[in-house]
Amino acid sequence: MSKSVFYHAGCPVCISAEQDILNLVDASKVDVVNFAEDKSRFEEAERLGVKSVPALVTPNGNVLHINFGASMDDVRG
Amino acid sequence: MSKSVFYHAGCPVCISAEQDILNLVDASKVDVVNFAEDKSRFEEAERLGVKSVPALVTPNGNVLHINFGASMDDVRG
Repeated sequence: MSKSVFYHAGCPVCISAEQDILNLVDASKVDVVNFAEDKSRFEEAERLGVKSVPALVTPNGNVLHINFGASMDDVRG
Repeated sequence: MSKSVFYHAGCPVCISAEQDILNLVDASKVDVVNFAEDKSRFEEAERLGVKSVPALVTPNGNVLHINFGASMDDVRG
């Protein structure tokens, strides 16, 4: 994959981090997935190693957990 | 300030995150501070709100704690 993916859950920490990341990184190179709007990619994120949101998965597959908004268990609900 | 500052302490988590960030963000827009080499900027980082490393402080002053390498207390030694 050549894009990064920013996973979040719509929480305040997530939204703040999303704005920061989109200011820093070329927005065309980041897919944004909000689990509050699209739960279908939840398992994909878990498989990639996302433990909490917000998190940025880089093109080489590294997971950057940024601050702490919510655990994936909390997001699963 | 118009640049971001990436603070780290030379730990494996830090180095990995540094490489990811420098791949994602225009490297000319990021100052990298390694406390293992330059302890003089430790208090500056604490003042900016850095609680653990690695951390990226954005141009607007937000602190993005990325994964968890070490607490600032651990780095102070």
